[in-house]
Amino acid sequence: MCELLGMSANVPTDICFSFSGLVQRGGKTGPHSDGWGLCFYEGKGCSVFRDPQPSYQSQIAQLLRSYPIKSEVVIGHIRQANCGEPSLANTHPFVRELWGESWSYAHNGQLKGHLELPYCVDQPVGDTDSEHAFCYLLGRLREHYPQKPQDMRELFSYVATLADELRSLGVFNMLLSNGEYLMVYCSNNLHWLTRRAPFSVARLIDEDLSIDFAKETTPDDVVTIIATQPLTHDEAWHKMEPGQWHLFHKGELVV
Amino acid sequence: MCELLGMSANVPTDICFSFSGLVQRGGKTGPHSDGWGLCFYEGKGCSVFRDPQPSYQSQIAQLLRSYPIKSEVVIGHIRQANCGEPSLANTHPFVRELWGESWSYAHNGQLKGHLELPYCVDQPVGDTDSEHAFCYLLGRLREHYPQKPQDMRELFSYVATLADELRSLGVFNMLLSNGEYLMVYCSNNLHWLTRRAPFSVARLIDEDLSIDFAKETTPDDVVTIIATQPLTHDEAWHKMEPGQWHLFHKGELVV
Repeated sequence: MCELLGMSANVPTDICFSFSGLVQRGGKTGPHSDGWGLCFYEGKGCSVFRDPQPSYQSQIAQLLRSYPIKSEVVIGHIRQANCGEPSLANTHPFVRELWGESWSYAHNGQLKGHLELPYCVDQPVGDTDSEHAFCYLLGRLREHYPQKPQDMRELFSYVATLADELRSLGVFNMLLSNGEYLMVYCSNNLHWLTRRAPFSVARLIDEDLSIDFAKETTPDDVVTIIATQPLTHDEAWHKMEPGQWHLFHKGELVV
Repeated sequence: MCELLGMSANVPTDICFSFSGLVQRGGKTGPHSDGWGLCFYEGKGCSVFRDPQPSYQSQIAQLLRSYPIKSEVVIGHIRQANCGEPSLANTHPFVRELWGESWSYAHNGQLKGHLELPYCVDQPVGDTDSEHAFCYLLGRLREHYPQKPQDMRELFSYVATLADELRSLGVFNMLLSNGEYLMVYCSNNLHWLTRRAPFSVARLIDEDLSIDFAKETTPDDVVTIIATQPLTHDEAWHKMEPGQWHLFHKGELVV
């Protein structure tokens, strides 16, 4: 299996602290040593850092732990390969353009019979069940909405029905974003929390590292973190239920 | 204007030396301070590093100057904005999936009337003439070849006819790759050279840095470098003619 990391914030925020915890699980405190990736949005553009090396040994991951790229939406993933060998083409997050926007996606879980899922315009580059399912989702979205719909809640509700379908093929925990909204779909393991004033101190579970968010934030900051398993002690993480999904916008829970 | 950098090699090769020369032109020895990007292929996968900051000040560029990512194909670009503000969405190279492959593209020059170029499936995310032209190219390719053609020379010959069209709108120097082939189209400024045994010492023009390729390579290595302007003293760069194009495969000139 793999682990997911997501962030939605109302001001550009760095993910260094949470990512520091996650990278330890990439071959050190966890078995997810088959690659890692992080996608950061800046406006409509996105930067994707991906490496098929274990995150706790990766020089690029080392840079990102200390280099504060500030973003309103981040999607991250560390991989323990089960379908598709460790390679760059099989490393999440996957990003594709849809309706003139960069859509990013990461998946945790395993799907059976994914090769039978039809796709149209968007074709897989690698050979993971995850990317295949993403191409299927994009195909269904292009078919259902030739143009981007006005009502984003309706759009993501439709994605949730497709995610229900995919969950019936196995395990489908998913993060999906267009850089503005972040959708989270739970099949079995996903947790989230929203940090807002009054901020306090948090301690990572996977590394001896604490942060006093009161010193790093302004009173108006709202930052939601999503992770497969809680990343910190001392904070109240919400555990999601199978089949449950949420939509976050600028750090706030919308659905 | 901008500067382009490309590499095609028969063994995974790092671009650190050439990139060290190019980054100096990103705000120090050259005026191209509106962002930079590098795309590296590993098999079918590609990693794209892009930053709207000047390359000579960029921490990510600093990492890539010293971190030897080895690749058979690299496309790079440093930007001096003329169409589209400096932003991540407007930073080259642009990458899109076509026929299950990651196609990367970078453009130097300026096009008039680019907004009238039609596109279909692939839509621009940013607002540069360059990305708009890339979407136009992809649309024409999807229309002409619903599936990837067998004959890659024929495919790139067709791209050259489209590039001729685009050149009639202004200046269109282009690098295009699917990770296996690297196509180079010249509108006014492009140079290339192929390094092979016996290797010798090269000195960068933009920085006091030399490299003895005999110590860095094996006798079978073949590495072609493409750049807007020559990057080194002491080497015989080929200057391309307006309207000329080349295709490289594993370091060798194919067309």
